[in-house]
Formats: sequence, C-alpha cells, structure tokens
Amino acid sequence: MPQLHLLSPKGFRAAGVSAGIKTKKHAKDVALLVADQLSPAAAVFTTNKVFAAPVKIGREHISNGELRGVVVNAGNANACTGMQGEKDARRMCALSADLLDARDEEFLPCSTGIIGHLMPMQKVERGIRAASKALGNSREHALSFSDAILTTDLVRKEAALESKGGKKFRIAGVCKGSGMIGPRMTLHATMLAFITTDAQVPVPLLRNVLEYATERSFNAVTVDDHMSTNDTAVVIASGAADASIESPKEINYFRDALTNVCESLAYQIAKDGEGATKVVAINITGAISDSDARVIARAIANSPLVKCAMHGNDPNWGRIVSAAGLAGVPFDPDKCSLKLQATTVFRNGQPVKFDANKVSKSLAAKEVQVDLACNAGKGVATCWTCDLSKGYITINADYHT
Amino acid sequence: MPQLHLLSPKGFRAAGVSAGIKTKKHAKDVALLVADQLSPAAAVFTTNKVFAAPVKIGREHISNGELRGVVVNAGNANACTGMQGEKDARRMCALSADLLDARDEEFLPCSTGIIGHLMPMQKVERGIRAASKALGNSREHALSFSDAILTTDLVRKEAALESKGGKKFRIAGVCKGSGMIGPRMTLHATMLAFITTDAQVPVPLLRNVLEYATERSFNAVTVDDHMSTNDTAVVIASGAADASIESPKEINYFRDALTNVCESLAYQIAKDGEGATKVVAINITGAISDSDARVIARAIANSPLVKCAMHGNDPNWGRIVSAAGLAGVPFDPDKCSLKLQATTVFRNGQPVKFDANKVSKSLAAKEVQVDLACNAGKGVATCWTCDLSKGYITINADYHT
Repeated sequence: MPQLHLLSPKGFRAAGVSAGIKTKKHAKDVALLVADQLSPAAAVFTTNKVFAAPVKIGREHISNGELRGVVVNAGNANACTGMQGEKDARRMCALSADLLDARDEEFLPCSTGIIGHLMPMQKVERGIRAASKALGNSREHALSFSDAILTTDLVRKEAALESKGGKKFRIAGVCKGSGMIGPRMTLHATMLAFITTDAQVPVPLLRNVLEYATERSFNAVTVDDHMSTNDTAVVIASGAADASIESPKEINYFRDALTNVCESLAYQIAKDGEGATKVVAINITGAISDSDARVIARAIANSPLVKCAMHGNDPNWGRIVSAAGLAGVPFDPDKCSLKLQATTVFRNGQPVKFDANKVSKSLAAKEVQVDLACNAGKGVATCWTCDLSKGYITINADYHT
Repeated sequence: MPQLHLLSPKGFRAAGVSAGIKTKKHAKDVALLVADQLSPAAAVFTTNKVFAAPVKIGREHISNGELRGVVVNAGNANACTGMQGEKDARRMCALSADLLDARDEEFLPCSTGIIGHLMPMQKVERGIRAASKALGNSREHALSFSDAILTTDLVRKEAALESKGGKKFRIAGVCKGSGMIGPRMTLHATMLAFITTDAQVPVPLLRNVLEYATERSFNAVTVDDHMSTNDTAVVIASGAADASIESPKEINYFRDALTNVCESLAYQIAKDGEGATKVVAINITGAISDSDARVIARAIANSPLVKCAMHGNDPNWGRIVSAAGLAGVPFDPDKCSLKLQATTVFRNGQPVKFDANKVSKSLAAKEVQVDLACNAGKGVATCWTCDLSKGYITINADYHT
C-alpha cells in the first residue's frame, strides 16, 4: 500500500509556494487546500480573547458548515492588526474564491507567524495566485502544503489512515506547531491543523466529532502553555468516497479514527516542541472525573520545573506530585502513586526506595511515560508535553520582531 | 541611623547555624527566630493540596494566634514524607520548645529544600541545639538567620522600616525564594518569609494585615508559577515597643508599612529568581476589578514566551497582549494600550510604530516596566517576575535528587 498523505482522501487538491513572507529565502509560506466541491466542514478556534483577524473571519465563514477550502500563510500571524488585518484576511478569501470560482465565504483563512505586523499583501496575493495554479493531488502536493504552513517547526507533521472493514474511507491531516503551544480550542495555537476525509459526514456530526477529537488531542498538548491568537483546526469532508457515516457503529468508528489522526498530530507537535529533546506523556488515572484528570495532567505538563527535570533525566518526582497539588482540583497525595518509566517512586503519600541511577537512565529516552494514579475515581487523561531545554531559550530570546 | 535589620524590632533574638543538611560544606541550614515572650502572631500558608509536614503542623500551632518563635531548616523540604515527616516536624518544635522553656505549640516549623526525602533528624537536632545557644539580637545574628534559610538563592533578602510620626515601632522581614516560586497563600513557595515587629497588634488585626499585604506582595511574585508545598509567611508582634496599633489611622499606617516590607521582599525574590538577569514589573490598570487585574498580570508574568522576550531585550509585544487574552477574564484588545519602558507599542487594538532598536536598548535594564492599560474599569495590579534564561535550565535540569 502506498504511503497515505493529506490528499489520499479523494476529492482534494493542494499546493504550497514560496511568496517571500518568511525571511528564509525560497521557504514555502503560502498554501491552498481545496475540495473539488463545496463540502461539509467544521472548525475549532482559539479561545484567546485576543484572536487574530483570520480567526474572526474564519468563524464567520465556517458558520454555514461548508467550505471549498482553506488559504494559509506562514510568517505573519495577522493578529493585533486592527481593521486593516480584517480587510487583509477577507482579501485572502476573496482572491482564493475568485481564482477557484467560489464565493468568498467558502474559504477559511489561517495565518501564523509574528504578531502585530501588517500583512505584506502584495506577496500574499502573489503567493495565492501561484498556489492556485500549482494545485494537485499527489504526495508532492501534500508535502508542499505541509511545508508552507510551518514556522519554527523543524519537521512536518502528518497523519493518515484508511478505514478497515465496513465502508471504505480515508482520513488524513497535517498540522504545524512548535512554540506558543497551549491550545484550548472550542467550536466557537499557533496551532494549525487541516484534516481531510472523503467520508460522507453530515455537518452536525462532523462538528461533534471534531470537538471530541480536539479535546483529546490538540487541547491535550502543551509546549509552553501560551494559547495562541491563531489556533485553528479544520476538517473538510469531501464525501468523494462511497462511505456515508450513519449507523452508531459507523459513527463511533469514524470518531475514533479522526481522534487517532488528531492524537498523532498532537503528539508530533510535542515531539517538535521548541528546543525539545523528548516527548513526555503525562498519564492520569483514577481522578474524580476525566475533566479533573485533564486539569491535573496539564498542570504537571506545564511546570517548568518538571520539564527541566525531564531534560536533565532527573527522577525528581516531588516536582510532579507538587504540580498535581497546585492544579486546583481535588487531589490527595496520600492516596496516589507515581511511576516514572514504569518504576514506582511514590506510593500512598510515602517515598518509595528506587535505584535513582537506573531510573535516570530510563528517563534518557525519546519518549517518557509519567503515570500518576490518583485512586479517587475513574477519571483518566493524557497530556503530551516536551522537556524544557536551553534550545527553547535560544529560539525565543533571539527570535526578534 | 544604623541600618535596620530583622532584629531591629525589640524583643527578638535569632541564630543560624550549619548542621550539615545542605551539601555545601559549612553552609548554614538551621535557624531559630524567637520572641522574648509568647506573642501575637499570624501566618499564611501554601494552598497547594500537596503540603509539607511543617505546613500541617504550622497550621495547627498558629491557630491560637500566638508564637514564641519559628524553627527553620533548609536543604530538605520535609514534603511527601508521610507520617515520619509529621513526626519530624513535631520533633523540631518540641526540641526548640524544650530548649527555650516554651510549649511545643508555641513554635512554628518551616522547611525548604528537596521534596520526598526523610529529614536527617540527627543533624537537624544538633542544629537546633547549637542555634538555641547562639541566639542574639545583633545585625550578625539577623544575617545568620537570613543565610540559613536560603537554598538556590544567590543573595539574602531583607527589608525593614521604622515608623515616622505617631507611635514609634519597627517592622522588619527576611525571606528566601528563587525557584518553585508561584505563591498563592492564604490564612488557612518555597517561599518562606519571616516578619518581626515590636508594635502591639491584636491577633485579628495582625491576620487581616498579613493577608492584605500577602495578596499585594508574595502572591504577586512569580518565577516559574510552580506553587510550592512549603510556602509560608509568618509575622510575630513582640509588642516590645510602646506602640499599640488602635486608631483607624494607626491601623492604615501599620497595614501600609507591613505591605511595604512584604513588597520589598517579594521584589527581591523576583530579582533573585533562578537564572534571572532582570526584574520585570507587569503593571495593569483599568481592568474591570483588582482581582481581574491580578489574573491578567499573572498570565503575562508567567508566559515563558514573554519571559524569553524580556531576556532577549525583544520588544515582541504580541506575546504580552496575547498572554493577557488567555488569562481567562474579560479583556478587549481594541480598548487597551501597552507601553514597554514608557514607549507605547500598541494602542486601541492597533500596532503603533516605534523605534525597535531604541526600545530593545531600553529593555536591557535591570528593571523593566510593562504597562498595560485596559481602559475597562478601575482595577489595578502589579506582578513581579523575572526573565527566563539558560541559567534557569542549568539550575533546574542539573539540580538532581
């Protein structure tokens, strides 16, 4: 089976081109993803009260539950740019629509990059025109799109799958995100995620499923907990496969499949976090509720002290337990136990003797598992984070405006 | 006028000795601060659900509103240490009381250092005995106490004042704190603060004033927002000066004086934050309420992206505005304006042209002022933080258990 990619689901074309917005020469920075026809679509956006112009316009345009496509630029976030920013985001949609014979509101705009600079619209428009001519549905086209949406990301992030048994359909996605990652998106980072599927999915279901998947994937990843002004995840269902999602069984299958794709993308964001040398999975079990478990997982995942300890392969578990205690939800250390890479280090409020050298060695892995059992209920959650290294400081103290 | 210190308020003695708890040889790590007589006292403690044994015992012992003194050790937090930890914290009080002819519950214990290790009680007891013999009220005694409570702190932190006009009294304080600093203390980090006064203050007033001052000082400082298991601030009023705080005017004067001392100590914590090269004051005006203003100030002060920008002298104001937007309280960027070191960079939702080189140079100061005017109400707050440097990573990735 050939490798699946963003354009494996039928009925989509994409392109990514270099328009000179990014300072790095020849770097791709404008991209289009287009369905062959107007299609059911859903999107979730940042809940930051400071949201970028494209988020404002995107919310308007998605309200009908259908899109022809998305138009994206990297290198400029078009955030905190006032009325001119709104005008520019609308222009990106209008131009894309014009070139592809659609209506303005059939395009969702996304931007990522520096905040507070007006968009270089000449470059952006040139990019959109070039992208509209370069559209195609090969793996190369998918890769061009993936590359054009990146900023400080070191690698592109993709996930795709094909349904097994039952009706045949595909779901694929790409995303970007490396810093300013602490998404809390709802239907109403800069993390951008674009998901395609050729299943036939009614809009209300698409919205439900995207929200369900987002809560367990993008909203469960953090690099620096700085919720962006531009976070957006969008799914478009071309319906080009003969696969209508109808029965409860089909709905559950589709929901889990979409969640898998989103989880894979979220994991890749943590792995490529600015300065990251490893992914850390914070797994909470036995909290009073799933929602409490998520709050505890996030508090641990966001602690700079925990992230530094992970960087130094230091089994300094006190930082983890104390981070759980400050999360603000019920937590009783006397009931809980903690494992680092499967070694128990704390149980029922008491330190457990362990071989610190051995555990430290086990922490020197590309993926670290932190398992905290609260023994208070049935709530579970996983949050993905990365370690905090000097690389993060280099990137963010030197990334000048 | 000779320099004021912790023991300038009459009626106190203190000592700090080396007991071998800290790994650094001859470093002082056990300390006593004792009032000549049982005195009105108040304390605030961490709100972390994982709180250390000395915090548990301290809450018990302060409940009567009177103390003879505090017994402190550095190098071991006595947190996550179960029943043995409680026994050890009680023993610290019992031994101090025994040596100073007091009752156990007249001593408040404080510990700071590594979490999850049982206390080396032989060393601690030896230290307490030595400290009890070394008690005195000179500046040298005050300095010994200040030194013995430090951990990763690079400098000691002291503040003191004498009342002007009206009744003559003194207030002084010392504190420690450099990392794991995100206190949210209530009357019910590791930041430890010890405040002495020789004013005559009834216990209910002392509690009110300490809570008022804490909210505006210790609870308004953050280094890494990791609320400690051990944060404690305690004030003892010896009443040794002929200065009873009674009239509304005297109460206000005393409240503001104590707040000044606490603010000075909090500022010194930010300045000595792990890896810090500068203090950053986040000043919010015009929020809907003081409480909203505090939430916004804290969200900005805790953003690793803002702290990295400050480290790099980067006027990347988008990170500041977006951090305000994610705080979770009402915030409208279209109404607000932002100044960096007195230069306006953003006004009414629009970027303002400014000389980036000039502002960058102005950010290369030991103290940076960030002023965000929300223009929504009368709420004000200041939060002190520090920049995020590679030094923080070095300290916290290498500080092994």
